[in-house]
Amino acid sequence: MAISANKVVKIGLVGLGKIAVDQHIPALRGNPGFELVAGCSPNARPDGIPAYPSMEAMLAAHPEIEALAICTPPQVRHRIAKDALATGRHVFLEKPPGATLGEAEVLRSFAAEKGVTLLASWHSRFAPAVSLTRAWIAQRKLKSMHIVWKENVRQWHPGQAWIFAPGGMGVFDPGINALSILTAVVGDAVIVKKADLHIPVNCDAPIAVEMEMTTAQGVPVRADFDFLQENLQTWSIFAEAEDGGKLSLGMGGAILEIDGQPVMKEAEREYPGLYAHFHELIASGASDADFAPLRIVADAFMLGKRIAAPEYIE
Amino acid sequence: MAISANKVVKIGLVGLGKIAVDQHIPALRGNPGFELVAGCSPNARPDGIPAYPSMEAMLAAHPEIEALAICTPPQVRHRIAKDALATGRHVFLEKPPGATLGEAEVLRSFAAEKGVTLLASWHSRFAPAVSLTRAWIAQRKLKSMHIVWKENVRQWHPGQAWIFAPGGMGVFDPGINALSILTAVVGDAVIVKKADLHIPVNCDAPIAVEMEMTTAQGVPVRADFDFLQENLQTWSIFAEAEDGGKLSLGMGGAILEIDGQPVMKEAEREYPGLYAHFHELIASGASDADFAPLRIVADAFMLGKRIAAPEYIE
Repeated sequence: MAISANKVVKIGLVGLGKIAVDQHIPALRGNPGFELVAGCSPNARPDGIPAYPSMEAMLAAHPEIEALAICTPPQVRHRIAKDALATGRHVFLEKPPGATLGEAEVLRSFAAEKGVTLLASWHSRFAPAVSLTRAWIAQRKLKSMHIVWKENVRQWHPGQAWIFAPGGMGVFDPGINALSILTAVVGDAVIVKKADLHIPVNCDAPIAVEMEMTTAQGVPVRADFDFLQENLQTWSIFAEAEDGGKLSLGMGGAILEIDGQPVMKEAEREYPGLYAHFHELIASGASDADFAPLRIVADAFMLGKRIAAPEYIE
Repeated sequence: MAISANKVVKIGLVGLGKIAVDQHIPALRGNPGFELVAGCSPNARPDGIPAYPSMEAMLAAHPEIEALAICTPPQVRHRIAKDALATGRHVFLEKPPGATLGEAEVLRSFAAEKGVTLLASWHSRFAPAVSLTRAWIAQRKLKSMHIVWKENVRQWHPGQAWIFAPGGMGVFDPGINALSILTAVVGDAVIVKKADLHIPVNCDAPIAVEMEMTTAQGVPVRADFDFLQENLQTWSIFAEAEDGGKLSLGMGGAILEIDGQPVMKEAEREYPGLYAHFHELIASGASDADFAPLRIVADAFMLGKRIAAPEYIE
């Protein structure tokens, strides 16, 4: 059911961990279309927001909440998102949209059945230079693409043991951000052809991945994901066109160079963009639930070669 | 483009291994709607069928071929199926419909674009008692289901080293047959909640799997897959209803018992049923490409816990 485009949507946060505090709360406070009413978490109590021990307690205290943003770890996201949709609230799902494709697909059907908005969010698609990259690719015949996504798990995911547990996805947790950009800019289906999954002997998810993909039209796409990168962190996507043109998207989509020349360098504003999109979806009674990035990860796990990597100790 | 329902469709086989000889050739010879024109394989030369070293050579010698059945191992199936669709032929794909979901989805789009029939076949769905099982479940509120699928890989897959290579799926190769029945009878989406994948230290795919699933409505479904079963082989699915009713589907769908009483015991005629279905699809200009069983396997690989199993030597 559509609403007025300038209506203020009352929203609650489910999960008050690092991503909620770093991204969701500031983005919501900066968007006049939303009123952040409350949050819930078993233990986190960030400053300046009424916090409850559970979603049920939060909704009992604030029945006026119309939308919920789910920022919990993926392993519990499905049950919570299903409960949230069952109460008739619009739902903003953090990425990935489920621990499995099956979970994600059920949420999409359930939102449609309930007539509410589901946003399966991919924050990297809202990086500043993604639109220009999509336009550059659409105007050319692609020759190849290369993703290099290397970060230090100890720096970016301190204490997040779930990331190497079954369903935590390991280095695909950041890598899926690159895949969300890839699938948004390439304008064609992406198929995994080969994946080497380096899994620490004491973990259930990979710490490094080399992957060979192809578009349905046959353009090769290589990806190198590494979770043990020290010093300089790299979140880059390179594209080469048949006409010799070269594009380089850096810093997760904030920096763009074309044929060696800087074209864009902007501050990251992904979550403000995401929440603007969520508001538009609610206003127009629509949903946005594209699972292509998660499908690529599932395919990589199914097809991949498992290679034992040294023990990982945080 | 639809054809007359009693037209004879000229068909060629791509891949002439065990499944072609045991199932496809007899089923085609028993169906007056098809004329088996030729086959191709790098080395296999079964009796009584003109054989060529490649699909290209076969189609050059027999341009009258209108449909192709792809019975190669999954690792090469995608390229061959895409080439087959590109020549404008209808395609019967052996299960699974690709080494990845991405491959399978591209084939579905490609067939639609070309206006030809794609049958992503699941032979177990054509087992004699599957329809009755679906009807029994539709009339009841389910309490739980349990799949027990245990066979001896040495007996059923001799010399098929691809089955434990990346993309070969291991025990999911037979297990996906059970999942194809499950997804056909349960009338609801199936979600993987937990999977223990026992992978031999010298292999890339599991030799045994215990999996906990649930339907979207919350009915628990357990699966036990084992590839080292000696003596009695088991391909059974058990269902229990809230009203106390019990159903037992045995021998891969050939035997049905309800509340302890035998209801059906029929000879297996899956491939004749599949080819009748393929002919109907061609005649009506339709496709049948449901990837739910493959999606469950991909989810199990993504979510699953990997457990080292003893080395496997054929």
